[in-house]
Amino acid sequence: MADESQKWVLMVTAQTPTNIAVIKYWGKRDENLILAINDSISVTLDPAHLCTTTTVAVSPAFNQDRMWLNGKEISLSGGRYQNCLREIRARANDVEDEKKGIKITKKDWENLHVHVASYNNFPTAAGLASSAAGFACLVYSLAKLMNVQEDNGRLSAIARQGSGSACRSLYGGFVKWVMGKEENGSDSIAVPLVDEKHWDELVIIIAVVCSRQKETSSTSVMRETVETSALIEHRAKEVVPKRIIQMEEAIQKCDFATFTHLTCADSNQFHAACLDTSPPIFYMNDTSHRQVLLTSSY
Amino acid sequence: MADESQKWVLMVTAQTPTNIAVIKYWGKRDENLILAINDSISVTLDPAHLCTTTTVAVSPAFNQDRMWLNGKEISLSGGRYQNCLREIRARANDVEDEKKGIKITKKDWENLHVHVASYNNFPTAAGLASSAAGFACLVYSLAKLMNVQEDNGRLSAIARQGSGSACRSLYGGFVKWVMGKEENGSDSIAVPLVDEKHWDELVIIIAVVCSRQKETSSTSVMRETVETSALIEHRAKEVVPKRIIQMEEAIQKCDFATFTHLTCADSNQFHAACLDTSPPIFYMNDTSHRQVLLTSSY
Repeated sequence: MADESQKWVLMVTAQTPTNIAVIKYWGKRDENLILAINDSISVTLDPAHLCTTTTVAVSPAFNQDRMWLNGKEISLSGGRYQNCLREIRARANDVEDEKKGIKITKKDWENLHVHVASYNNFPTAAGLASSAAGFACLVYSLAKLMNVQEDNGRLSAIARQGSGSACRSLYGGFVKWVMGKEENGSDSIAVPLVDEKHWDELVIIIAVVCSRQKETSSTSVMRETVETSALIEHRAKEVVPKRIIQMEEAIQKCDFATFTHLTCADSNQFHAACLDTSPPIFYMNDTSHRQVLLTSSY
Repeated sequence: MADESQKWVLMVTAQTPTNIAVIKYWGKRDENLILAINDSISVTLDPAHLCTTTTVAVSPAFNQDRMWLNGKEISLSGGRYQNCLREIRARANDVEDEKKGIKITKKDWENLHVHVASYNNFPTAAGLASSAAGFACLVYSLAKLMNVQEDNGRLSAIARQGSGSACRSLYGGFVKWVMGKEENGSDSIAVPLVDEKHWDELVIIIAVVCSRQKETSSTSVMRETVETSALIEHRAKEVVPKRIIQMEEAIQKCDFATFTHLTCADSNQFHAACLDTSPPIFYMNDTSHRQVLLTSSY
Protein backbone atom coordinates (compact mmCIF):
# COMPACT_ATOMS: atom_id res chain seq x y z
CA MET A 1 0.00 0.00 0.00
CA ALA A 2 1.25 3.45 -0.91
CA ASP A 3 2.51 5.76 1.78
CA GLU A 4 -0.18 8.41 2.45
CA SER A 5 2.50 11.09 2.68
CA GLN A 6 3.48 10.39 -0.94
CA LYS A 7 0.06 11.32 -2.28
CA TRP A 8 0.12 15.08 -2.39
CA VAL A 9 0.88 17.16 -5.49
CA LEU A 10 1.41 20.91 -5.47
CA MET A 11 0.92 22.77 -8.75
CA VAL A 12 1.38 26.23 -10.21
CA THR A 13 0.27 27.34 -13.66
CA ALA A 14 1.58 30.43 -15.42
CA GLN A 15 1.15 32.01 -18.81
CA THR A 16 3.92 33.97 -20.56
CA PRO A 17 3.68 35.74 -23.90
CA THR A 18 6.33 35.61 -26.59
CA ASN A 19 8.28 38.76 -27.46
CA ILE A 20 9.38 40.08 -30.82
CA ALA A 21 12.67 41.96 -31.02
CA VAL A 22 12.71 45.35 -32.73
CA ILE A 23 16.48 45.66 -32.22
CA LYS A 24 17.73 42.12 -32.65
CA TYR A 25 19.79 39.90 -30.39
CA TRP A 26 22.16 37.94 -32.64
CA GLY A 27 25.42 36.55 -31.33
CA LYS A 28 26.70 35.40 -27.95
CA ARG A 29 29.90 36.27 -26.14
CA ASP A 30 29.35 33.39 -23.68
CA GLU A 31 27.62 30.23 -24.89
CA ASN A 32 26.99 28.66 -21.48
CA LEU A 33 25.70 31.69 -19.58
CA ILE A 34 24.07 33.06 -22.75
CA LEU A 35 25.54 36.55 -22.77
CA ALA A 36 24.85 38.64 -25.87
CA ILE A 37 27.27 40.69 -27.96
CA ASN A 38 24.79 43.60 -28.05
CA ASP A 39 21.80 45.07 -26.23
CA SER A 40 18.38 44.31 -27.73
CA ILE A 41 14.87 45.71 -27.44
CA SER A 42 11.60 43.86 -27.88
CA VAL A 43 7.85 44.18 -27.56
CA THR A 44 6.14 41.60 -25.41
CA LEU A 45 2.94 40.43 -27.06
CA ASP A 46 -0.47 40.13 -25.48
CA PRO A 47 -0.66 36.77 -23.64
CA ALA A 48 -4.13 36.33 -25.12
CA HIS A 49 -2.48 35.98 -28.53
CA LEU A 50 0.87 34.19 -28.61
CA CYS A 51 1.81 32.55 -25.33
CA THR A 52 3.13 29.54 -23.51
CA THR A 53 1.08 28.01 -20.68
CA THR A 54 3.15 26.00 -18.24
CA THR A 55 2.08 23.95 -15.25
CA VAL A 56 4.76 22.87 -12.83
CA ALA A 57 4.02 20.28 -10.22
CA VAL A 58 5.95 18.88 -7.31
CA SER A 59 5.25 15.68 -5.42
CA PRO A 60 7.25 13.31 -3.23
CA ALA A 61 5.93 10.62 -5.59
CA PHE A 62 7.98 11.98 -8.50
CA ASN A 63 11.34 10.28 -8.76
CA GLN A 64 12.86 12.47 -11.46
CA ASP A 65 12.40 15.85 -13.14
CA ARG A 66 10.35 15.39 -16.32
CA MET A 67 8.87 17.70 -18.93
CA TRP A 68 6.25 17.51 -21.68
CA LEU A 69 6.18 20.10 -24.47
CA ASN A 70 2.97 20.27 -26.49
CA GLY A 71 1.99 16.89 -25.05
CA LYS A 72 5.22 15.12 -25.97
CA GLU A 73 7.86 14.25 -23.40
CA ILE A 74 11.19 15.98 -23.96
CA SER A 75 14.55 15.56 -22.24
CA LEU A 76 15.56 17.90 -19.43
CA SER A 77 19.16 16.75 -19.56
CA GLY A 78 20.37 19.70 -21.65
CA GLY A 79 22.53 22.34 -20.00
CA ARG A 80 19.95 25.06 -20.48
CA TYR A 81 17.21 23.28 -18.58
CA GLN A 82 19.67 22.15 -15.94
CA ASN A 83 20.97 25.70 -15.45
CA CYS A 84 17.44 27.07 -14.94
CA LEU A 85 16.41 24.27 -12.58
CA ARG A 86 19.61 24.58 -10.55
CA GLU A 87 19.38 28.39 -10.24
CA ILE A 88 15.73 28.31 -9.17
CA ARG A 89 16.23 25.43 -6.71
CA ALA A 90 19.13 27.33 -5.17
CA ARG A 91 16.74 30.17 -4.35
CA ALA A 92 13.79 28.04 -3.14
CA ASN A 93 12.14 28.85 0.19
CA ASP A 94 9.73 27.23 2.64
CA VAL A 95 6.28 26.52 1.21
CA GLU A 96 3.24 25.70 3.30
CA ASP A 97 -0.28 24.76 2.18
CA GLU A 98 -2.28 24.40 5.38
CA LYS A 99 -5.45 23.24 3.67
CA LYS A 100 -3.67 20.38 1.97
CA GLY A 101 -1.47 19.79 4.98
CA ILE A 102 1.70 20.27 2.92
CA LYS A 103 4.88 21.68 4.34
CA ILE A 104 8.05 21.89 2.29
CA THR A 105 11.18 23.36 3.81
CA LYS A 106 13.89 25.15 1.91
CA LYS A 107 16.11 22.11 2.35
CA ASP A 108 13.45 19.68 0.99
CA TRP A 109 13.62 21.17 -2.53
CA GLU A 110 17.02 19.56 -3.09
CA ASN A 111 15.38 16.14 -3.03
CA LEU A 112 11.99 16.88 -4.57
CA HIS A 113 11.41 16.45 -8.29
CA VAL A 114 9.18 18.44 -10.60
CA HIS A 115 7.02 17.62 -13.55
CA VAL A 116 6.50 20.31 -16.17
CA ALA A 117 3.79 20.48 -18.83
CA SER A 118 4.15 23.29 -21.36
CA TYR A 119 1.94 24.23 -24.31
CA ASN A 120 2.48 26.86 -27.00
CA ASN A 121 -0.63 28.24 -28.68
CA PHE A 122 1.49 29.06 -31.78
CA PRO A 123 4.06 27.23 -33.99
CA THR A 124 7.10 26.00 -32.05
CA ALA A 125 10.65 26.67 -33.33
CA ALA A 126 9.38 28.57 -36.36
CA GLY A 127 10.78 32.04 -35.71
CA LEU A 128 8.10 33.16 -33.27
CA ALA A 129 10.27 33.03 -30.17
CA SER A 130 8.70 29.93 -28.65
CA SER A 131 11.83 29.32 -26.59
CA ALA A 132 11.60 32.88 -25.20
CA ALA A 133 8.04 32.39 -23.98
CA GLY A 134 8.83 28.82 -22.93
CA PHE A 135 11.86 29.47 -20.72
CA ALA A 136 10.36 32.65 -19.24
CA CYS A 137 7.26 30.69 -18.29
CA LEU A 138 9.26 27.75 -16.95
CA VAL A 139 11.42 29.97 -14.73
CA TYR A 140 8.48 32.07 -13.57
CA SER A 141 6.24 29.12 -12.69
CA LEU A 142 9.05 27.25 -10.93
CA ALA A 143 9.87 30.43 -8.98
CA LYS A 144 6.24 30.67 -7.84
CA LEU A 145 6.08 26.98 -6.96
CA MET A 146 9.31 27.15 -4.95
CA ASN A 147 8.45 30.51 -3.36
CA VAL A 148 11.52 32.24 -4.82
CA GLN A 149 11.72 35.81 -3.48
CA GLU A 150 13.46 37.50 -6.40
CA ASP A 151 12.14 40.32 -8.55
CA ASN A 152 11.53 39.84 -12.26
CA GLY A 153 14.91 41.39 -13.10
CA ARG A 154 16.75 38.67 -11.15
CA LEU A 155 14.43 36.01 -12.60
CA SER A 156 15.17 37.37 -16.09
CA ALA A 157 18.87 36.59 -15.56
CA ILE A 158 17.87 32.98 -14.87
CA ALA A 159 15.47 32.72 -17.81
CA ARG A 160 18.30 34.14 -20.00
CA GLN A 161 20.32 31.00 -19.24
CA GLY A 162 17.53 28.95 -20.83
CA SER A 163 17.18 31.09 -23.94
CA GLY A 164 18.67 34.56 -24.32
CA SER A 165 15.52 36.30 -25.51
CA ALA A 166 13.48 34.63 -22.72
CA CYS A 167 14.70 37.28 -20.28
CA ARG A 168 12.66 39.90 -22.16
CA SER A 169 9.40 37.97 -21.71
CA LEU A 170 9.43 38.51 -17.94
CA TYR A 171 8.04 42.01 -18.50
CA GLY A 172 5.19 43.35 -20.61
CA GLY A 173 5.43 46.23 -23.10
CA PHE A 174 8.78 47.45 -24.42
CA VAL A 175 11.71 45.69 -22.82
CA LYS A 176 15.46 46.06 -23.14
CA TRP A 177 17.90 43.24 -22.58
CA VAL A 178 21.02 44.96 -21.26
CA MET A 179 23.96 42.85 -22.41
CA GLY A 180 25.94 43.70 -19.27
CA LYS A 181 29.67 43.62 -18.63
CA GLU A 182 30.16 41.10 -15.83
CA GLU A 183 31.73 37.76 -16.68
CA ASN A 184 29.21 35.88 -14.52
CA GLY A 185 26.29 37.55 -16.32
CA SER A 186 24.79 39.07 -13.18
CA ASP A 187 24.18 42.41 -14.95
CA SER A 188 22.85 40.83 -18.16
CA ILE A 189 19.16 41.28 -17.39
CA ALA A 190 15.89 42.56 -18.82
CA VAL A 191 14.58 46.01 -17.89
CA PRO A 192 11.20 47.45 -18.83
CA LEU A 193 11.73 50.64 -20.85
CA VAL A 194 8.32 52.15 -20.15
CA ASP A 195 5.14 51.40 -18.28
CA GLU A 196 3.47 48.23 -19.59
CA LYS A 197 0.50 50.27 -20.83
CA HIS A 198 2.63 52.79 -22.77
CA TRP A 199 1.73 53.02 -26.49
CA ASP A 200 -0.78 50.19 -26.19
CA GLU A 201 -2.69 51.24 -29.29
CA LEU A 202 0.22 49.73 -31.25
CA VAL A 203 -1.05 46.66 -33.09
CA ILE A 204 1.33 43.88 -34.13
CA ILE A 205 0.36 41.68 -37.03
CA ILE A 206 2.06 38.30 -37.24
CA ALA A 207 1.99 36.83 -40.74
CA VAL A 208 2.98 33.18 -40.58
CA VAL A 209 4.67 32.53 -43.92
CA CYS A 210 5.72 29.00 -43.03
CA SER A 211 4.98 27.14 -39.81
CA ARG A 212 7.46 24.33 -40.35
CA GLN A 213 10.16 23.93 -37.74
CA LYS A 214 13.44 25.64 -38.58
CA GLU A 215 16.01 23.28 -40.06
CA THR A 216 18.84 24.73 -38.01
CA SER A 217 18.53 25.98 -34.44
CA SER A 218 19.08 29.69 -33.78
CA THR A 219 21.84 28.73 -31.37
CA SER A 220 24.00 27.02 -33.95
CA VAL A 221 23.39 29.64 -36.67
CA MET A 222 24.21 32.41 -34.20
CA ARG A 223 27.47 30.70 -33.34
CA GLU A 224 28.34 30.32 -37.03
CA THR A 225 27.56 34.00 -37.63
CA VAL A 226 29.88 35.09 -34.81
CA GLU A 227 32.59 32.74 -36.09
CA THR A 228 32.36 33.47 -39.83
CA SER A 229 30.61 36.77 -40.58
CA ALA A 230 32.93 39.67 -41.35
CA LEU A 231 30.15 42.13 -40.53
CA ILE A 232 28.65 40.93 -37.23
CA GLU A 233 31.26 42.49 -34.93
CA HIS A 234 30.85 45.87 -36.61
CA ARG A 235 27.07 45.53 -36.27
CA ALA A 236 27.31 44.68 -32.56
CA LYS A 237 29.89 47.32 -31.63
CA GLU A 238 29.13 50.21 -33.96
CA VAL A 239 25.63 49.94 -35.38
CA VAL A 240 23.44 48.56 -32.59
CA PRO A 241 24.50 50.94 -29.77
CA LYS A 242 23.36 53.92 -31.86
CA ARG A 243 20.13 52.19 -32.85
CA ILE A 244 19.34 51.33 -29.22
CA ILE A 245 19.46 55.03 -28.31
CA GLN A 246 17.31 56.00 -31.30
CA MET A 247 14.83 53.21 -30.63
CA GLU A 248 14.43 54.11 -26.95
CA GLU A 249 13.68 57.68 -27.96
CA ALA A 250 11.18 56.57 -30.63
CA ILE A 251 9.38 54.39 -28.08
CA GLN A 252 9.27 57.17 -25.46
CA LYS A 253 7.83 59.56 -28.03
CA CYS A 254 5.52 56.99 -29.69
CA ASP A 255 7.22 58.04 -32.95
CA PHE A 256 5.77 55.46 -35.33
CA ALA A 257 7.79 56.47 -38.41
CA THR A 258 11.16 56.17 -36.65
CA PHE A 259 10.06 53.06 -34.77
CA THR A 260 9.05 51.17 -37.93
CA HIS A 261 12.05 52.41 -39.91
CA LEU A 262 14.48 51.18 -37.24
CA THR A 263 12.59 47.92 -36.74
CA CYS A 264 12.64 47.09 -40.46
CA ALA A 265 16.27 48.18 -40.88
CA ASP A 266 17.40 46.10 -37.92
CA SER A 267 15.42 43.05 -38.97
CA ASN A 268 16.93 43.29 -42.45
CA GLN A 269 20.41 43.71 -40.99
CA PHE A 270 19.93 40.59 -38.89
CA HIS A 271 18.97 38.70 -42.08
CA ALA A 272 22.00 40.31 -43.79
CA ALA A 273 24.26 38.95 -41.04
CA CYS A 274 22.76 35.48 -41.61
CA LEU A 275 23.48 35.82 -45.32
CA ASP A 276 27.04 36.90 -44.51
CA THR A 277 27.48 33.68 -42.51
CA SER A 278 29.36 30.79 -44.05
CA PRO A 279 27.52 28.69 -45.13
CA PRO A 280 24.79 31.33 -45.50
CA ILE A 281 21.42 31.04 -43.78
CA PHE A 282 18.23 32.14 -45.47
CA TYR A 283 15.36 32.64 -43.06
CA MET A 284 13.33 34.53 -45.67
CA ASN A 285 11.70 33.18 -48.80
CA ASP A 286 9.96 34.75 -51.80
CA THR A 287 6.77 35.26 -49.78
CA SER A 288 8.52 37.06 -46.92
CA HIS A 289 10.48 39.16 -49.46
CA ARG A 290 7.18 40.39 -50.86
CA GLN A 291 5.91 41.18 -47.36
CA VAL A 292 9.07 43.11 -46.49
CA LEU A 293 8.78 45.14 -49.68
CA LEU A 294 5.11 45.83 -48.99
CA THR A 295 6.01 47.01 -45.49
CA SER A 296 8.93 49.13 -46.75
CA SER A 297 6.64 50.99 -49.11
CA TYR A 298 4.80 52.61 -46.19
CA MET B 1 22.27 64.09 -106.72
CA ALA B 2 24.20 63.06 -103.62
CA ASP B 3 27.75 64.25 -103.17
CA GLU B 4 30.08 61.31 -104.01
CA SER B 5 32.28 62.19 -101.03
CA GLN B 6 29.36 61.51 -98.67
CA LYS B 7 29.04 57.90 -99.74
CA TRP B 8 31.79 56.14 -97.79
CA VAL B 9 31.29 54.30 -94.54
CA LEU B 10 34.13 53.01 -92.41
CA MET B 11 33.32 50.22 -89.96
CA VAL B 12 34.95 48.27 -87.14
CA THR B 13 33.45 45.25 -85.36
CA ALA B 14 34.64 43.98 -81.99
CA GLN B 15 33.56 41.31 -79.57
CA THR B 16 33.95 41.61 -75.79
CA PRO B 17 33.05 39.04 -73.18
CA THR B 18 31.26 39.79 -69.96
CA ASN B 19 33.07 39.39 -66.64
CA ILE B 20 31.87 37.99 -63.34
CA ALA B 21 33.23 39.51 -60.15
CA VAL B 22 34.63 37.16 -57.53
CA ILE B 23 35.31 40.08 -55.17
CA LYS B 24 32.42 42.43 -55.79
CA TYR B 25 32.31 46.07 -56.80
CA TRP B 26 29.43 47.64 -54.88
CA GLY B 27 29.35 51.36 -54.13
CA LYS B 28 30.78 54.48 -55.78
CA ARG B 29 32.74 57.35 -54.28
CA ASP B 30 32.20 59.45 -57.44
CA GLU B 31 28.99 58.99 -59.42
CA ASN B 32 30.05 60.88 -62.53
CA LEU B 33 33.54 59.45 -63.02
CA ILE B 34 32.42 56.07 -61.62
CA LEU B 35 35.04 55.57 -58.96
CA ALA B 36 34.53 52.61 -56.65
CA ILE B 37 34.75 52.48 -52.85
CA ASN B 38 36.78 49.25 -53.05
CA ASP B 39 39.00 47.22 -55.36
CA SER B 40 37.34 44.29 -57.13
CA ILE B 41 38.48 41.16 -58.94
CA SER B 42 36.70 39.35 -61.75
CA VAL B 43 37.04 36.56 -64.26
CA THR B 44 36.49 37.49 -67.87
CA LEU B 45 34.44 34.82 -69.61
CA ASP B 46 35.16 33.17 -72.93
CA PRO B 47 33.85 35.46 -75.74
CA ALA B 48 32.44 32.35 -77.39
CA HIS B 49 29.96 32.09 -74.51
CA LEU B 50 28.67 35.39 -73.10
CA CYS B 51 29.66 38.40 -75.15
CA THR B 52 28.65 41.64 -76.77
CA THR B 53 29.32 42.18 -80.48
CA THR B 54 29.50 45.81 -81.47
CA THR B 55 29.92 47.39 -84.88
CA VAL B 56 30.79 51.07 -85.00
CA ALA B 57 30.56 52.97 -88.26
CA VAL B 58 31.53 56.46 -89.30
CA SER B 59 30.37 58.28 -92.39
CA PRO B 60 30.12 61.89 -93.47
CA ALA B 61 26.50 61.01 -94.29
CA PHE B 62 25.64 60.53 -90.59
CA ASN B 63 24.30 63.71 -89.06
CA GLN B 64 24.19 62.54 -85.44
CA ASP B 65 25.58 59.83 -83.15
CA ARG B 66 23.07 56.98 -82.91
CA MET B 67 23.01 53.56 -81.29
CA TRP B 68 20.98 50.37 -81.54
CA LEU B 69 21.03 47.77 -78.73
CA ASN B 70 19.75 44.32 -79.62
CA GLY B 71 18.14 45.85 -82.73
CA LYS B 72 16.31 48.63 -80.91
CA GLU B 73 17.44 52.23 -81.05
CA ILE B 74 18.46 53.67 -77.68
CA SER B 75 19.38 57.19 -76.67
CA LEU B 76 23.03 58.24 -76.47
CA SER B 77 22.20 61.40 -74.58
CA GLY B 78 23.03 59.95 -71.13
CA GLY B 79 26.19 61.16 -69.41
CA ARG B 80 27.83 57.74 -69.51
CA TYR B 81 27.66 57.42 -73.30
CA GLN B 82 28.64 61.06 -73.71
CA ASN B 83 31.65 60.62 -71.42
CA CYS B 84 32.90 57.61 -73.39
CA LEU B 85 32.36 59.27 -76.79
CA ARG B 86 34.04 62.48 -75.66
CA GLU B 87 37.07 60.71 -74.16
CA ILE B 88 37.62 58.54 -77.22
CA ARG B 89 37.12 61.44 -79.68
CA ALA B 90 39.65 63.48 -77.73
CA ARG B 91 42.25 60.77 -78.41
CA ALA B 92 41.37 60.13 -82.09
CA ASN B 93 44.13 60.13 -84.71
CA ASP B 94 44.47 60.25 -88.49
CA VAL B 95 42.90 57.31 -90.31
CA GLU B 96 43.57 56.38 -93.90
CA ASP B 97 42.02 53.67 -96.04
CA GLU B 98 43.81 53.87 -99.37
CA LYS B 99 41.70 51.20 -101.06
CA LYS B 100 38.47 53.01 -100.28
CA GLY B 101 40.13 56.38 -100.84
CA ILE B 102 39.19 57.55 -97.34
CA LYS B 103 41.31 59.98 -95.37
CA ILE B 104 40.18 61.26 -91.98
CA THR B 105 42.42 63.65 -90.10
CA LYS B 106 42.59 63.95 -86.33
CA LYS B 107 40.66 67.22 -86.57
CA ASP B 108 37.85 65.69 -88.70
CA TRP B 109 36.65 63.44 -85.88
CA GLU B 110 35.18 66.43 -84.07
CA ASN B 111 32.60 66.79 -86.82
CA LEU B 112 32.03 63.19 -87.84
CA HIS B 113 29.21 61.15 -86.31
CA VAL B 114 29.11 57.46 -85.49
CA HIS B 115 26.46 54.78 -85.64
CA VAL B 116 26.73 51.92 -83.18
CA ALA B 117 25.00 48.55 -83.38
CA SER B 118 25.43 46.30 -80.34
CA TYR B 119 24.13 42.79 -79.63
CA ASN B 120 24.30 40.70 -76.49
CA ASN B 121 24.15 36.92 -76.91
CA PHE B 122 22.76 36.65 -73.34
CA PRO B 123 20.00 38.34 -71.27
CA THR B 124 20.46 42.12 -70.95
CA ALA B 125 20.23 43.86 -67.53
CA ALA B 126 19.59 40.58 -65.74
CA GLY B 127 22.66 40.36 -63.51
CA LEU B 128 25.04 39.01 -66.15
CA ALA B 129 27.06 42.20 -66.54
CA SER B 130 25.70 43.17 -69.94
CA SER B 131 26.71 46.78 -69.34
CA ALA B 132 30.26 45.66 -68.57
CA ALA B 133 30.62 43.80 -71.86
CA GLY B 134 28.68 46.52 -73.68
CA PHE B 135 30.72 49.54 -72.62
CA ALA B 136 34.02 47.69 -72.91
CA CYS B 137 33.10 46.72 -76.46
CA LEU B 138 31.85 50.22 -77.33
CA VAL B 139 35.05 51.88 -76.10
CA TYR B 140 37.30 49.27 -77.70
CA SER B 141 35.61 49.37 -81.11
CA LEU B 142 35.47 53.18 -81.16
CA ALA B 143 39.15 53.29 -80.20
CA LYS B 144 39.97 51.02 -83.15
CA LEU B 145 37.80 53.01 -85.52
CA MET B 146 39.37 56.31 -84.46
CA ASN B 147 42.90 54.91 -84.30
CA VAL B 148 43.33 55.71 -80.63
CA GLN B 149 46.90 54.87 -79.54
CA GLU B 150 46.27 53.99 -75.89
CA ASP B 151 46.92 50.68 -74.18
CA ASN B 152 44.08 48.64 -72.69
CA GLY B 153 44.78 50.08 -69.23
CA ARG B 154 44.09 53.63 -70.43
CA LEU B 155 41.07 52.41 -72.41
CA SER B 156 39.79 50.65 -69.26
CA ALA B 157 39.67 54.04 -67.49
CA ILE B 158 37.40 55.28 -70.30
CA ALA B 159 35.18 52.17 -70.32
CA ARG B 160 34.88 52.59 -66.52
CA GLN B 161 33.09 55.89 -67.12
CA GLY B 162 30.43 53.98 -69.06
CA SER B 163 29.95 51.24 -66.47
CA GLY B 164 32.33 50.60 -63.59
CA SER B 165 32.74 46.89 -64.16
CA ALA B 166 33.29 47.46 -67.90
CA CYS B 167 36.93 48.33 -67.22
CA ARG B 168 37.57 44.71 -66.23
CA SER B 169 36.33 43.35 -69.58
CA LEU B 170 39.25 44.95 -71.46
CA TYR B 171 41.45 42.04 -70.36
CA GLY B 172 40.96 38.28 -70.40
CA GLY B 173 41.46 35.95 -67.44
CA PHE B 174 41.61 37.26 -63.88
CA VAL B 175 41.43 41.03 -63.70
CA LYS B 176 41.61 43.51 -60.84
CA TRP B 177 39.95 46.89 -60.93
CA VAL B 178 42.20 49.08 -58.78
CA MET B 179 39.95 51.69 -57.19
CA GLY B 180 42.73 54.30 -57.26
CA LYS B 181 43.20 57.43 -55.19
CA GLU B 182 43.18 60.29 -57.69
CA GLU B 183 40.17 62.58 -57.77
CA ASN B 184 40.14 62.59 -61.58
CA GLY B 185 40.09 58.80 -61.67
CA SER B 186 43.27 58.48 -63.75
CA ASP B 187 44.57 55.65 -61.53
CA SER B 188 41.23 53.84 -61.34
CA ILE B 189 41.97 51.22 -63.98
CA ALA B 190 41.88 47.52 -64.71
CA VAL B 191 45.02 45.40 -64.47
CA PRO B 192 45.39 41.77 -65.47
CA LEU B 193 46.45 39.72 -62.44
CA VAL B 194 47.93 36.83 -64.37
CA ASP B 195 48.51 35.70 -67.92
CA GLU B 196 45.22 35.26 -69.77
CA LYS B 197 45.84 31.51 -70.06
CA HIS B 198 46.49 31.02 -66.32
CA TRP B 199 44.19 28.44 -64.67
CA ASP B 200 42.19 28.04 -67.86
CA GLU B 201 40.87 24.63 -66.86
CA LEU B 202 38.53 26.53 -64.53
CA VAL B 203 34.98 26.10 -65.81
CA ILE B 204 32.28 28.65 -64.97
CA ILE B 205 28.68 27.52 -65.00
CA ILE B 206 26.06 30.23 -65.39
CA ALA B 207 22.64 29.17 -64.13
CA VAL B 208 20.05 31.65 -65.34
CA VAL B 209 17.40 31.62 -62.61
CA CYS B 210 15.38 34.44 -64.12
CA SER B 211 16.09 36.27 -67.37
CA ARG B 212 13.69 39.17 -66.76
CA GLN B 213 15.21 42.62 -66.65
CA LYS B 214 16.03 43.89 -63.17
CA GLU B 215 13.36 46.17 -61.76
CA THR B 216 15.90 48.63 -60.36
CA SER B 217 19.20 49.53 -62.01
CA SER B 218 22.41 48.57 -60.25
CA THR B 219 23.38 52.24 -60.26
CA SER B 220 20.45 53.39 -58.15
CA VAL B 221 20.58 50.43 -55.76
CA MET B 222 24.32 50.95 -55.30
CA ARG B 223 23.70 54.60 -54.45
CA GLU B 224 21.00 53.64 -51.93
CA THR B 225 23.33 51.10 -50.34
CA VAL B 226 26.08 53.69 -49.89
CA GLU B 227 23.55 56.17 -48.49
CA THR B 228 21.61 53.87 -46.15
CA SER B 229 23.53 50.69 -45.29
CA ALA B 230 25.27 50.75 -41.92
CA LEU B 231 27.56 47.93 -43.04
CA ILE B 232 28.82 48.94 -46.50
CA GLU B 233 31.59 51.28 -45.35
CA HIS B 234 32.98 48.62 -43.02
CA ARG B 235 32.85 46.12 -45.88
CA ALA B 236 34.68 48.47 -48.26
CA LYS B 237 37.34 49.64 -45.82
CA GLU B 238 37.95 46.64 -43.60
CA VAL B 239 36.68 43.46 -45.23
CA VAL B 240 37.43 43.79 -48.94
CA PRO B 241 41.12 44.87 -48.72
CA LYS B 242 41.92 41.64 -46.84
CA ARG B 243 39.89 39.54 -49.23
CA ILE B 244 41.62 41.08 -52.25
CA ILE B 245 45.01 39.93 -50.93
CA GLN B 246 43.68 36.43 -50.15
CA MET B 247 41.97 36.17 -53.54
CA GLU B 248 45.08 37.24 -55.48
CA GLU B 249 47.04 34.57 -53.67
CA ALA B 250 44.37 31.91 -54.33
CA ILE B 251 44.39 32.78 -58.03
CA GLN B 252 48.20 32.70 -58.26
CA LYS B 253 48.23 29.29 -56.59
CA CYS B 254 45.14 27.93 -58.41
CA ASP B 255 43.82 27.16 -54.92
CA PHE B 256 40.26 26.11 -55.76
CA ALA B 257 39.03 25.68 -52.17
CA THR B 258 40.07 29.19 -51.09
CA PHE B 259 38.96 30.69 -54.40
CA THR B 260 35.43 29.27 -54.16
CA HIS B 261 35.12 29.99 -50.45
CA LEU B 262 36.04 33.66 -50.95
CA THR B 263 33.88 33.97 -54.07
CA CYS B 264 30.80 32.60 -52.30
CA ALA B 265 31.44 34.62 -49.13
CA ASP B 266 31.89 37.83 -51.08
CA SER B 267 28.85 37.24 -53.26
CA ASN B 268 26.77 36.58 -50.15
CA GLN B 269 28.17 39.70 -48.49
CA PHE B 270 27.19 41.77 -51.51
CA HIS B 271 23.64 40.39 -51.22
CA ALA B 272 23.80 41.08 -47.47
CA ALA B 273 24.67 44.73 -48.20
CA CYS B 274 21.66 44.91 -50.54
CA LEU B 275 19.47 43.51 -47.78
CA ASP B 276 20.92 46.07 -45.36
CA THR B 277 19.86 48.84 -47.76
CA SER B 278 16.72 50.81 -47.02
CA PRO B 279 14.38 49.88 -48.64
CA PRO B 280 16.03 46.45 -48.97
CA ILE B 281 16.86 44.89 -52.31
CA PHE B 282 16.46 41.17 -52.92
CA TYR B 283 18.35 39.96 -55.98
CA MET B 284 17.97 36.34 -54.91
CA ASN B 285 14.85 34.23 -54.85
CA ASP B 286 13.98 30.77 -53.53
CA THR B 287 15.60 29.12 -56.56
CA SER B 288 18.89 30.98 -56.16
CA HIS B 289 18.84 30.27 -52.40
CA ARG B 290 18.72 26.56 -53.20
CA GLN B 291 21.60 26.94 -55.66
CA VAL B 292 23.72 28.84 -53.13
CA LEU B 293 23.11 26.15 -50.51
CA LEU B 294 23.96 23.43 -53.02
CA THR B 295 27.21 25.24 -53.85
CA SER B 296 28.06 25.83 -50.18
CA SER B 297 27.78 22.13 -49.46
CA TYR B 298 30.86 21.42 -51.59
